[in-house]
Amino acid sequence: MALIVKKFGGSSVGSVELIRRIAARLADDYRRGEKIVLVVSAMAKTTDSLFALAHQITRFPSRREMDMLLTAGERISMSLLSLALLEEGVPSISFTGSQSGIITDGNHGNARIEKVNAFRIHEELDKDKIVIVAGFQGVSTAKEITTLGRGGSDTSAVAMACYLNADSCEIYTDVDGVFTADPRVVPDARLIPEIGYKDMLALALSGSKVLHPRAVEYAMRHGVRVEVRSSFTFREGTTIKDEYDIKDKIMEKREIIAIAQKAQLLRYRIAASQESIAMIAAWVDELHKISYIEDSIEVYIEPKYESDFEYALERNKVKILDKCEGLGSVSLIGDALASDLKLMAELLSICKSFPHCSLSQSQTAVEFILPADQTVSLIAKLHDEYLKDKQ
Amino acid sequence: MALIVKKFGGSSVGSVELIRRIAARLADDYRRGEKIVLVVSAMAKTTDSLFALAHQITRFPSRREMDMLLTAGERISMSLLSLALLEEGVPSISFTGSQSGIITDGNHGNARIEKVNAFRIHEELDKDKIVIVAGFQGVSTAKEITTLGRGGSDTSAVAMACYLNADSCEIYTDVDGVFTADPRVVPDARLIPEIGYKDMLALALSGSKVLHPRAVEYAMRHGVRVEVRSSFTFREGTTIKDEYDIKDKIMEKREIIAIAQKAQLLRYRIAASQESIAMIAAWVDELHKISYIEDSIEVYIEPKYESDFEYALERNKVKILDKCEGLGSVSLIGDALASDLKLMAELLSICKSFPHCSLSQSQTAVEFILPADQTVSLIAKLHDEYLKDKQ
Repeated sequence: MALIVKKFGGSSVGSVELIRRIAARLADDYRRGEKIVLVVSAMAKTTDSLFALAHQITRFPSRREMDMLLTAGERISMSLLSLALLEEGVPSISFTGSQSGIITDGNHGNARIEKVNAFRIHEELDKDKIVIVAGFQGVSTAKEITTLGRGGSDTSAVAMACYLNADSCEIYTDVDGVFTADPRVVPDARLIPEIGYKDMLALALSGSKVLHPRAVEYAMRHGVRVEVRSSFTFREGTTIKDEYDIKDKIMEKREIIAIAQKAQLLRYRIAASQESIAMIAAWVDELHKISYIEDSIEVYIEPKYESDFEYALERNKVKILDKCEGLGSVSLIGDALASDLKLMAELLSICKSFPHCSLSQSQTAVEFILPADQTVSLIAKLHDEYLKDKQ
Repeated sequence: MALIVKKFGGSSVGSVELIRRIAARLADDYRRGEKIVLVVSAMAKTTDSLFALAHQITRFPSRREMDMLLTAGERISMSLLSLALLEEGVPSISFTGSQSGIITDGNHGNARIEKVNAFRIHEELDKDKIVIVAGFQGVSTAKEITTLGRGGSDTSAVAMACYLNADSCEIYTDVDGVFTADPRVVPDARLIPEIGYKDMLALALSGSKVLHPRAVEYAMRHGVRVEVRSSFTFREGTTIKDEYDIKDKIMEKREIIAIAQKAQLLRYRIAASQESIAMIAAWVDELHKISYIEDSIEVYIEPKYESDFEYALERNKVKILDKCEGLGSVSLIGDALASDLKLMAELLSICKSFPHCSLSQSQTAVEFILPADQTVSLIAKLHDEYLKDKQ
């Protein structure tokens, strides 16, 4: 019997109505003979409202207490989902991160999974139950409650699939899968049925929100095959797996896979000093991009971090030399694009045709930074040129 | 240094504003040198709204999953209180029932505390921290999350004070203490500075909501001295302790202590059968009173249980012979009142002066049952007669 880990994000369990719908669907899967482990996030908005409560009390909440607070969120969603499954007549049991045996380091707010002692999960699966596991949370060896930080539930699901040696890891979300570009921006964007780990990681790092980069990295490192599907249609979406397993993938051939974007970025220029470098290092997970230019540092960051970041600069006495708002990034994803000089020449000429546009490259992506109001037309142009007619 | 357990109920931590106020006050206590363990309930309304979510999904929720769901409530209140204390500059740490070492049996929804392994609490107290413990919850030896049922947080606090060998157990609530009658009903009701365990237990069982009967029983059995105080004024209220320690208490003398009431009760008469007796036994914690009359059973129950109770009767195929709404109970609390025949004669004559009024007695109380709209005047009469001029 196939063992399948299925993860449902906050928007998929955002209301009692949605929870009941998912439970009915899972009851079908269960009756078809699947062995199922569910990983769930907190209901959409729960985490935000808990955050808001904490910030009414303090500007710099203790990370340890924030972990205690936020982990209440998954308790609520997972027990409600379990009640809904029981109501469908399906035996079910929910477990906290601690009860699931998700052991992490003690880094509150951004813990790393060290191992999964999944014996209680196996016990309950053997009793033919659907087991529901709280995503995003774990327990340290000192018995402290931890959270995994951004993308935590995706990572929980992948780790769970890895340690349970599951046949599949399905991530249910509010989109149908991974597309060649954001379908809201490019109406003729295509669903990508299969994508390699490295390309998916580059996409995630460049702004695609389908799967968190950390979860992709974990899947890549442990060879966990991940399927992204819509929690509304349950249809097959995109499978993320080893590039060598992708059919029709022509090795050694440069291939443009998709376009990712970040709609809004801020750029700060600050003087390079021991203090500023130390501070920037502490912020590395939140920053979109860092570049060193002579004796100053340019950092790109999303506007949601604006006030916290500026407050941190102030506390560390780091002066802002320049601040630029209203930028956006557009990335063309594909392996070794930069070594294709003909392509790079074309991209440079496209870059020049947009005002205030700059271009940089990495192993897996070529990135344009330009005024935010220009990103949509650049994406349309790139998609037309490199992704429209393929396949 | 005095070690004090302080318990705050849901209405005391019902908003961020109240939490900050309590934290400021506790910071003073801490700076005066108190060693403090806080026991907190879920914020008022949190539990109700979690219940409502569950009942949108299922009429008969699994008790195990309800425990998982409801324990989210204390996580939220205790971590917010901890953040507020830290913001006040007071070192503080919050612990779940499990982390606090509150070991219970496995009876979900109504677990009993078996022991408290408080070593983590002692460790943190030794580091001069205020330790915040989730009330109402514990963990079974099978590592399942449990709740203690009604009055659970009061019981948590008393058990904590017992196992920590605390110097005092202070229960903060939304009233100033225990009064000779409900001050909203009897304006000249007096605050009772000291009351014995047995009288307090009788009061709690007869409808006083200041302290849950289970917590009183626990305190009595383990000799824990409990102080009830207002969480708004923090002033000294009522101390509950061994009757022999109460000054000026005249032994062997009949004394009327206070009046308690239940404003609304329903009475059901059902046929006595094996099924109905078994069902009633399962409901014993929720019932106000049971009496056996020839071959039928009369049970009194509060209206909030009406629909669940009737549904249970229906499921167990127990027929309702008679149902009477709009009743109330008024109890005169004091030891061995019934053996004072002169008093009983007076009470019988008072009973007769009210329509449809009946009277029964136990070791610690004399109870009147009468139409609900008559309870206020009966309370006023009894208070005038037996409690007004005393002291």
